[in-house]
Amino acid sequence: MDPRIIEHAKIMVEWCTEVKKGDMVVIRAPPVAHEFVVALTKEVARVGGRPIVQMSSEEVDRAFFDGASEETLQIFPRHEKALVEECDVYIAVRSPMNTTALANVDPKRIMINNKTIHEITTIRLDKRWSLTVHPCPTLAQQANMSLEEYREFVYNATLIDWKEESKNLYLMKEHLERHDDIRYIGPETDIHASTKGRIWVASDGKHNMPSGEIFTAPVDDSVEGRIYFDIPFMQQGKVIQGVRLTFEKGEVVDFSAEKEEPTLKSIIETDEGSRRLGEMAIGTNRGIKQYTLNMLFDEKIGDTIHCALGQAYKDCNGVNESAVHVDMIKTMHEGEIFAGDELIYSKGKYFFEM
Amino acid sequence: MDPRIIEHAKIMVEWCTEVKKGDMVVIRAPPVAHEFVVALTKEVARVGGRPIVQMSSEEVDRAFFDGASEETLQIFPRHEKALVEECDVYIAVRSPMNTTALANVDPKRIMINNKTIHEITTIRLDKRWSLTVHPCPTLAQQANMSLEEYREFVYNATLIDWKEESKNLYLMKEHLERHDDIRYIGPETDIHASTKGRIWVASDGKHNMPSGEIFTAPVDDSVEGRIYFDIPFMQQGKVIQGVRLTFEKGEVVDFSAEKEEPTLKSIIETDEGSRRLGEMAIGTNRGIKQYTLNMLFDEKIGDTIHCALGQAYKDCNGVNESAVHVDMIKTMHEGEIFAGDELIYSKGKYFFEM
Repeated sequence: MDPRIIEHAKIMVEWCTEVKKGDMVVIRAPPVAHEFVVALTKEVARVGGRPIVQMSSEEVDRAFFDGASEETLQIFPRHEKALVEECDVYIAVRSPMNTTALANVDPKRIMINNKTIHEITTIRLDKRWSLTVHPCPTLAQQANMSLEEYREFVYNATLIDWKEESKNLYLMKEHLERHDDIRYIGPETDIHASTKGRIWVASDGKHNMPSGEIFTAPVDDSVEGRIYFDIPFMQQGKVIQGVRLTFEKGEVVDFSAEKEEPTLKSIIETDEGSRRLGEMAIGTNRGIKQYTLNMLFDEKIGDTIHCALGQAYKDCNGVNESAVHVDMIKTMHEGEIFAGDELIYSKGKYFFEM
Repeated sequence: MDPRIIEHAKIMVEWCTEVKKGDMVVIRAPPVAHEFVVALTKEVARVGGRPIVQMSSEEVDRAFFDGASEETLQIFPRHEKALVEECDVYIAVRSPMNTTALANVDPKRIMINNKTIHEITTIRLDKRWSLTVHPCPTLAQQANMSLEEYREFVYNATLIDWKEESKNLYLMKEHLERHDDIRYIGPETDIHASTKGRIWVASDGKHNMPSGEIFTAPVDDSVEGRIYFDIPFMQQGKVIQGVRLTFEKGEVVDFSAEKEEPTLKSIIETDEGSRRLGEMAIGTNRGIKQYTLNMLFDEKIGDTIHCALGQAYKDCNGVNESAVHVDMIKTMHEGEIFAGDELIYSKGKYFFEM
């Protein structure tokens, strides 16, 4: 087996979910991740956990939607609830067999089903959970790479010293929380917001692997200024690029995109909350050097910031509500980040590197 | 998708497990059976069931044994119990990725784990359960066939008129249970046993797909005579062939095998119960025309009988106890089966075909 698969499994079990003796573990993974499941199972067993593997598959999900009546979509899967309720740790491996398997399912039917299983999703979030990917052809293709290149990419992002990364993130949290506002400056960009009463969450790879970001929810009506996001991102199957946003009193008052502006427009106009920022964040994972149109990786690219229109996280004391949460990323090699009067980042260096 | 996969899925859902609206269904299947899982999921959804897929894999099992301490093998997987307890239907697809993945695990460790999960196995047997295979390369190889030939073989065995097969089996049960003994006659064979107080179970494909057999547990000390089993079978990784057994007062008093006699000897000498027959049966599935060293199929070959040394089934009112249950098969094209004085089968014809 590729020794990187084993190292990845060790990180999931020891760092992300801290599996210990007697833990009931659910590993949810697709067929294409079988080898990773083998590695995960051995690591879980080694530390005294008891694993059970749930098979995930977009094609199976699609078959369910194709077969089920609207009534069936509303039948509560109590056996799945029982499984999730009795587990201590939940490891999800998202390596799609086909990212478009559900493309032609009526979104209303997906929403009905999501509503049916919402209770299970909530229970799951109360467990020690973590989400990762195992390199697979569909993700390599989406990233415009060969499978071997993509493996290199994924393991560069995940097989890093998470203790060290965590230390830096918590140091940054301490400094950011000393102040009541945040400001991003850079090419075509000068935007600031109040963070009073909000929490900066240091995402050090417990729930997302890879991670490497620190994020908060800005005070809703406080965002002012303009920003240019140079990294493309995928939404509704479209690649949106070169987004420019201008904010007044927390709301988008002007916007444009170099590519797919109508999709950007539809996102901004989704609801009341989608005109406001639900998240402002700093990406810190230097193992990730390029975007791959996969937000799990892209928003963590080192030397970037990102902002999300829409839903805010409760963990940050955020209150903005929206049906969407759309992240947009900006490289900061030529930019600066200020918390109050403190320079947090400048042109390739975080304050602790200056 | 191969339309035979869909038909197979329909049989599993409609005939074998009779899934109905509101049923909680567990499908346990290996990665190699993904396409069959897609078909099963759609059929389950179509009749109003709610499926969840558990991934089975010998390589994952092996990784568990490789990682787990003896203490960990004894930790009860309460999340798996919760899942099984809350399900109504359990469909197991046994398509091994590698039949020898567990070959070098200490059998004592496997036994310890089996003991740990015994309660779960018992709960599962109280559900509407069924077991089948999806054609895969390892089973094709074991059967000495190409994958396409093996598909043909599997679907010939499974995609048959189970209502008709069932009718014949229940007719046979009626006739067999009118009498108190059973006798197999054929080349180098004349063996008889009492079936007084015992039940003949008509296996019409509910729990095994394919099925097509009727079996009972003979009265323990009543088996007398000799029998020659011409069909090879696999035990402990060895292919045993040409077994001859002689019984007196229910016990093996003489035995030989043309191939792998030492393995046969070790089976017979396992314990007290392994010297006696736990099962006597008649195979009726004419869709199966050749052996493939897979007992799920071989014991059901049409125009055969089989006997098993060891453990008897409680369903038959059997009482013989043993750690083994080893089936051995004999073709009956030149043989006869009597229940009391009634001719049940003669040289290629069951009584209802005469």
